[in-house]
Amino acid sequence: MNENTTILAIGSGKGGVGKSTVAANLAVSLSEKGYDVGLLDGDILGYSIPQIMGIKDEKATAIGEKKIKPVEKHGIKIMSMGNLVDDNQPLIWRGPILSGILEQFIKDVQWGSLDFLLLDLPPGTGDIPLSLMQQAKDTKFVIVTTPQITAKDVAKRLGLMAQKTNSEIIGVIENMSYFICDNCDKKHYIFGEGEGEILSEELEVDLLGEIPLLKEIRSGGDIGTIPALDKESTIGKIYETIGDDIIKKLK
Amino acid sequence: MNENTTILAIGSGKGGVGKSTVAANLAVSLSEKGYDVGLLDGDILGYSIPQIMGIKDEKATAIGEKKIKPVEKHGIKIMSMGNLVDDNQPLIWRGPILSGILEQFIKDVQWGSLDFLLLDLPPGTGDIPLSLMQQAKDTKFVIVTTPQITAKDVAKRLGLMAQKTNSEIIGVIENMSYFICDNCDKKHYIFGEGEGEILSEELEVDLLGEIPLLKEIRSGGDIGTIPALDKESTIGKIYETIGDDIIKKLK
Repeated sequence: MNENTTILAIGSGKGGVGKSTVAANLAVSLSEKGYDVGLLDGDILGYSIPQIMGIKDEKATAIGEKKIKPVEKHGIKIMSMGNLVDDNQPLIWRGPILSGILEQFIKDVQWGSLDFLLLDLPPGTGDIPLSLMQQAKDTKFVIVTTPQITAKDVAKRLGLMAQKTNSEIIGVIENMSYFICDNCDKKHYIFGEGEGEILSEELEVDLLGEIPLLKEIRSGGDIGTIPALDKESTIGKIYETIGDDIIKKLK
Repeated sequence: MNENTTILAIGSGKGGVGKSTVAANLAVSLSEKGYDVGLLDGDILGYSIPQIMGIKDEKATAIGEKKIKPVEKHGIKIMSMGNLVDDNQPLIWRGPILSGILEQFIKDVQWGSLDFLLLDLPPGTGDIPLSLMQQAKDTKFVIVTTPQITAKDVAKRLGLMAQKTNSEIIGVIENMSYFICDNCDKKHYIFGEGEGEILSEELEVDLLGEIPLLKEIRSGGDIGTIPALDKESTIGKIYETIGDDIIKKLK
């Protein structure tokens, strides 16, 4: 982390839209382009980055008295509460403690020199995004939604909150856009259609991409492979374009 | 609300697993069986119950100086932050305030005499479930997950937290269990298979039901109809069985 590091917060407001999967794939996509990338799991209580990145059993280690050494995978430096605690113990902590932990993760993890720090935000428009906007005013946001109106409505509230605190939104990514039956090729808009585009218009930002719901993504989230690693795959190509788009917008 | 009201908290830990949809359908199912049911949207920042129940444009009103009159739909008394505030304004509040609002909703809403108060918990294992377990120690939990390992892991942490504070878990509901292509009838386990059952075994409680991902559910969440209202539908039948099961377990 230094003054040239771009902090990209990946948020959705609503949980379960695949925000962490998008954050992980974006991190891989940017890293594959040659950038130094860190990935911080801001969902202290509901972390899923270790599962997605396939580093569930790896622990972050202390360096001296104050610094934490992140876990590394696919060239990306990763920090998640899941790499510090035992997975079978529930964490019962309150909001202000959580904000403190996130601040500590940003400051005390030995990120080294990064071009990008991707921050996978927790669901909600509560303590953590609020603290973040107050602490790091030049954080840029990528808003993730699904084609569901309920998801779009909550994502919009997060977007409005970012704009209210003068944080820049880079764009919107629609996840789980459609599903293709691998037997008959029928395209199913299981969760609805077009809300990502509507959201981008309402927030007056660009729609960066629409990512289909494929089994490769689901398995990716569960067994720890990242579709963006395979640039020839459907999903890989989409993330490559999104990565290029983001870099262009930041220049 | 009186001393005979059973408080059923519907929680998942992880967001986006369809917890609010499950809560709404369960409320309808119990109400259709003749019980007096209240539905409280505990997701103060990320409310979606008004959308799901089709009461987005209705506002809760004040009675005298201290009581709030809930919105009513399908015979169910409903309270959500979405029925108090303007949908286009993001709510930027911190944890302790949120717990206070939930407590106020339980106490100051004119629920009347209820057999069941269904509480749709926010995602996470943070402030709100914690306060709830501390305040209302006889709250019973229904844990919702999807067939994804990442969802199951977080749901398990919520379950362990409930058991740690000696709250009873009635059972597990697996949502989005599979999708059936309406063109060729192929059954797709889009999000994986069997994690609901594994979770119920790990928490040593029953699996109450597996709910398929059908377009009727998705549209239900988006346009405000509730599949459980139609007892002849696939989903309606499943909820009817789950409702019967819950009542049996509470006797």
